[in-house]
Amino acid sequence: MITTFTFLDPVLEPLQQMENLLSNQADGTRSPFEAALAELIAAGGKRLRPRLALLAGRALKAGEAPLVNLAAAVEMLHTATLIHDDLVDGASLRRGVATLNTRWPAAASVLVGDLAFTRAAGLIQATRSLPVIEMFTRTMAVMVESEVAQLARPAGYLSREDYFQRIGAKTAALFELAAGAPALLSRSGAETLAAARRFGYGVGMAFQIVDDVLDLAGDPARLGKPTGSDLRQGVITLPALNYLEDHPGDADLRAVLQRERPDEAGLKRLIERICQSAAIDRALETASDFIREALEELACLPECPERFALADLALDIVEREQ
Amino acid sequence: MITTFTFLDPVLEPLQQMENLLSNQADGTRSPFEAALAELIAAGGKRLRPRLALLAGRALKAGEAPLVNLAAAVEMLHTATLIHDDLVDGASLRRGVATLNTRWPAAASVLVGDLAFTRAAGLIQATRSLPVIEMFTRTMAVMVESEVAQLARPAGYLSREDYFQRIGAKTAALFELAAGAPALLSRSGAETLAAARRFGYGVGMAFQIVDDVLDLAGDPARLGKPTGSDLRQGVITLPALNYLEDHPGDADLRAVLQRERPDEAGLKRLIERICQSAAIDRALETASDFIREALEELACLPECPERFALADLALDIVEREQ
Repeated sequence: MITTFTFLDPVLEPLQQMENLLSNQADGTRSPFEAALAELIAAGGKRLRPRLALLAGRALKAGEAPLVNLAAAVEMLHTATLIHDDLVDGASLRRGVATLNTRWPAAASVLVGDLAFTRAAGLIQATRSLPVIEMFTRTMAVMVESEVAQLARPAGYLSREDYFQRIGAKTAALFELAAGAPALLSRSGAETLAAARRFGYGVGMAFQIVDDVLDLAGDPARLGKPTGSDLRQGVITLPALNYLEDHPGDADLRAVLQRERPDEAGLKRLIERICQSAAIDRALETASDFIREALEELACLPECPERFALADLALDIVEREQ
Repeated sequence: MITTFTFLDPVLEPLQQMENLLSNQADGTRSPFEAALAELIAAGGKRLRPRLALLAGRALKAGEAPLVNLAAAVEMLHTATLIHDDLVDGASLRRGVATLNTRWPAAASVLVGDLAFTRAAGLIQATRSLPVIEMFTRTMAVMVESEVAQLARPAGYLSREDYFQRIGAKTAALFELAAGAPALLSRSGAETLAAARRFGYGVGMAFQIVDDVLDLAGDPARLGKPTGSDLRQGVITLPALNYLEDHPGDADLRAVLQRERPDEAGLKRLIERICQSAAIDRALETASDFIREALEELACLPECPERFALADLALDIVEREQ
């Protein structure tokens, strides 16, 4: 019976409530800009972060209404950062749809992103939990401060520690919030809170590493964007770092590190070399290590269908192909 | 003695605390971008909004620490909106200093603005008052929604009601928050809360009308920016609306309404015609009406030096020259 439980989705109902709440946050009839926000919300993706929040919250017996608001707030904050990041990075596709910044002047991305931030603030305050509101704002600060630091980062050397710090702030912090805040809602003890946070953090780290692998080795059609977008923007991720360790003299990769824009042919050859090396597998092993450590934290949660579903969710991270 | 009281500043000390709190929000040594935020905060301006909050809060006996946080949060939200607005409008000068968008690519303005929003969220949650946090988020929503609607506004006709609604959302809402939230902090009754909000709203409306007058008739050196920037961006304000009522056939103004970019010579002549008409005085009379109505709301506050200072502040709005 337990295996059946893990295949049923134990948060189907609150997830549907969250979808309704999310779709109420943008009135697509008011302007083409709000319609674009509504569209981006609906395009949705896998709802990993809200799913984490709902599963952790159910496992810890958090109140349903605040939990659904928290899950929606986390997804809305994610959406807000995507809109501004796409503008900052000049990205052209998101979830297979043309980004706002390719359709309108920068003003639209700025303001629609601000609107999404505002909606996220409204949703998180609806939890009426000051500790949750505080954790939310701290997470937002970690994410934005890291983005500002990234803008100011000089070209050249990038260490493994820099990389982990960057993806920790960019991605894992939000997963940590999703998994940890439910422990605040349920007034769980400090130990459970810390374990839930570490679980979310580890899942987030693995998620971003797999994302960075897919950016090089994934199927562009499934990803909804061309491969190599990180390198094209001068961003060095773990697979490229692994490759650089084994091939410190690779001139194409050195050029990317120095923020010289590589030509498309050179970039394609570089991606091929990385994909044919052991760099990809080593990065995936690192992701698996994060997942393994994260799974150990789950012992802190009561045994229940939601805990099994959290383990499934974590294991799926290293199996995903998009 | 009472007149002496009104000339002394009854909130000198909390205002200084607020300045310290504000300057702690941006570490200028971390990156040139955070330095730009620190510089913008320090350039400061008149601190009208925090002054409103501190005076109202003192009059209503709100707790000092939450009040100072509220005042700083309001000023930080104001700063955040300025950064994104300057990017959206392509403005080149702010408080006499080159705007971020003229110094760096859009990414810097987007992220430094986001950083300021995040700091504002941190400051407001430090009040630890859910009603205040809610009022803050609602105000942010009013401001951002209005900006998005403004992007989508079709060229052509603009009514007086449209104008009042726009400046209500753009400016008066934040003044309303500054004056009203202290009543929430002090747990004043509903009547006092409503009166404090209306006072702030009226002062904000008058402030924006005077701002719009100065944009046409002010001294560019004192303003720190050239005159006519609104018309140059196709924005029609109250003086221009007044002028249009008396001169419905003015071709230059009609062109601005249709979003045709006027040439500089035509624009200069248009500004001269508006300034020589009765349109400016009529706009200032409207501002005075808002101040007169706002002053009546002050009767709801206890008689104290802070109440007199609030009246002074309101009266100064229609006297200012920058």
